Amino acid sequence: MSLDNHWFTEVDITHGTAFSLRITAKLHEEQTPFQRITIYDTTEFGKLMTLDQMFMVTDRDNFIYHEMITHPVLFTHPAPRQVVIIGGGDCGTLREVLKHDEVKQVVQIEIDERVTRVAEQYFPQLCESNQDPRAHFHFQDGIKWMAAAPDHSVDVIIVDSTDPLGPAEGLFDSAFYRQCRRVLTAHGILAQQSESPLLHLPLLQSIHQAMREAGFANTRTLHFPQCIYPSGWWSVTLAGASGLTQFRINEVLNKKFNTLYYNADIHQASFALPTFVTEALPR
Amino acid sequence: MSLDNHWFTEVDITHGTAFSLRITAKLHEEQTPFQRITIYDTTEFGKLMTLDQMFMVTDRDNFIYHEMITHPVLFTHPAPRQVVIIGGGDCGTLREVLKHDEVKQVVQIEIDERVTRVAEQYFPQLCESNQDPRAHFHFQDGIKWMAAAPDHSVDVIIVDSTDPLGPAEGLFDSAFYRQCRRVLTAHGILAQQSESPLLHLPLLQSIHQAMREAGFANTRTLHFPQCIYPSGWWSVTLAGASGLTQFRINEVLNKKFNTLYYNADIHQASFALPTFVTEALPR
Repeated sequence: MSLDNHWFTEVDITHGTAFSLRITAKLHEEQTPFQRITIYDTTEFGKLMTLDQMFMVTDRDNFIYHEMITHPVLFTHPAPRQVVIIGGGDCGTLREVLKHDEVKQVVQIEIDERVTRVAEQYFPQLCESNQDPRAHFHFQDGIKWMAAAPDHSVDVIIVDSTDPLGPAEGLFDSAFYRQCRRVLTAHGILAQQSESPLLHLPLLQSIHQAMREAGFANTRTLHFPQCIYPSGWWSVTLAGASGLTQFRINEVLNKKFNTLYYNADIHQASFALPTFVTEALPR
Repeated sequence: MSLDNHWFTEVDITHGTAFSLRITAKLHEEQTPFQRITIYDTTEFGKLMTLDQMFMVTDRDNFIYHEMITHPVLFTHPAPRQVVIIGGGDCGTLREVLKHDEVKQVVQIEIDERVTRVAEQYFPQLCESNQDPRAHFHFQDGIKWMAAAPDHSVDVIIVDSTDPLGPAEGLFDSAFYRQCRRVLTAHGILAQQSESPLLHLPLLQSIHQAMREAGFANTRTLHFPQCIYPSGWWSVTLAGASGLTQFRINEVLNKKFNTLYYNADIHQASFALPTFVTEALPR
């Protein structure tokens, strides 16, 4: 069966795959200085945002990604107070971070203010915590912001970026990770979205290598299903200034907020890697 | 971007999703009494088999499904000697089962002999154990075979079927499960492919319910990424005549065969369910 114009399709020609959602309307489209932002309504996935014709977020399945890029790193850190999000323009990651009472301040550095403004209009539930007094927005280049940030001033850095092409390219190299390492506190952790274990294994290897070159003591990858991203399988890689092997399990078991995907069992399980991934990554 | 005829696309209109692989040639096509079998060559996923225009198996990613429908159930059973596979025509499941030395006999009941003959031609690596003297093939209806099988004669039944439409429809109900329960030994386990946790949660609920109605003491779902199936996320549900909570971890740690996805950590991790799934299933 072929697809007509009632579908939005993202083609990954390099990996020979494509994924499509059935759409009913294009609600918004604009070209910013950085990228093209488009909002569709879909038949079964609610609203959809694409950036440069690539799937970013839907109402239906964003909970998995947003929970898994935030709660594992925040419950691994012994006491996260100061959090920085690089990217994260749709604000879903910010919302999850702000569920943690122990977090005192979150600074979000998104290069394209229009992503956030469009998300506020079309994904109001993802933006429901944007008025939290702990949230601070800076619409600027994350690499420059990090280079200017004071030493040892942040507990957790979350890099919630697009693919390593275009605006996000410099967020995946050791020069950026070295700045993150400098800015992090003694038990600080960097969390980076790290693409598909099936399709992007060489990139995942290079992320680990660059993080270790940048002086991080330990790196670990966690993984989860994510329907709209290539291969339907995605990962986040943590880099710890010190260890990464413990997590605050009792606080997960007694957390005061709801999650749909994340829980204590999933926390541990998400770090269990398939043999072909373990064999590809540094010990 | 739209897709031209260099792509094979499976459309799931009910869930508003579609997945495509880039193809270079159609190598084979035939209509059997049961279904249409097509073999394509793809750019990045090796050979692809479809049945009635639905993705069945590719060279690139079949290892995940075949390992996860076999090794978790076989290492959960205390001593699997007699194994039955219902469906499984591509023979990848059979190959994984036969990696277990303790298995004395595997009977495969596939309704459509042509699936196996075509797999032998185009997926020779999946069929490399078909000549093992422990393997026995019956090309007939799995429901009828099960109804005629002796009581308490099988340790593990693996239902490696297509979706619950067409030939496989009767493999998902309590009448069939009741026959399986009767045929299984005291510690016997049934393993059933049970679709996508994201897209097919009501079906997953009904599978658990039907298994328990059929007299199984316990049911548990495990999950894993599977790129070519709808949502890229798939599951297998186990039904135990007695318990399902232990597994032979030392034998997994010391297993004498190779796997690419499965290992002891993955075994445990695959049973850790997201909160929204746990809340939907019986305790």
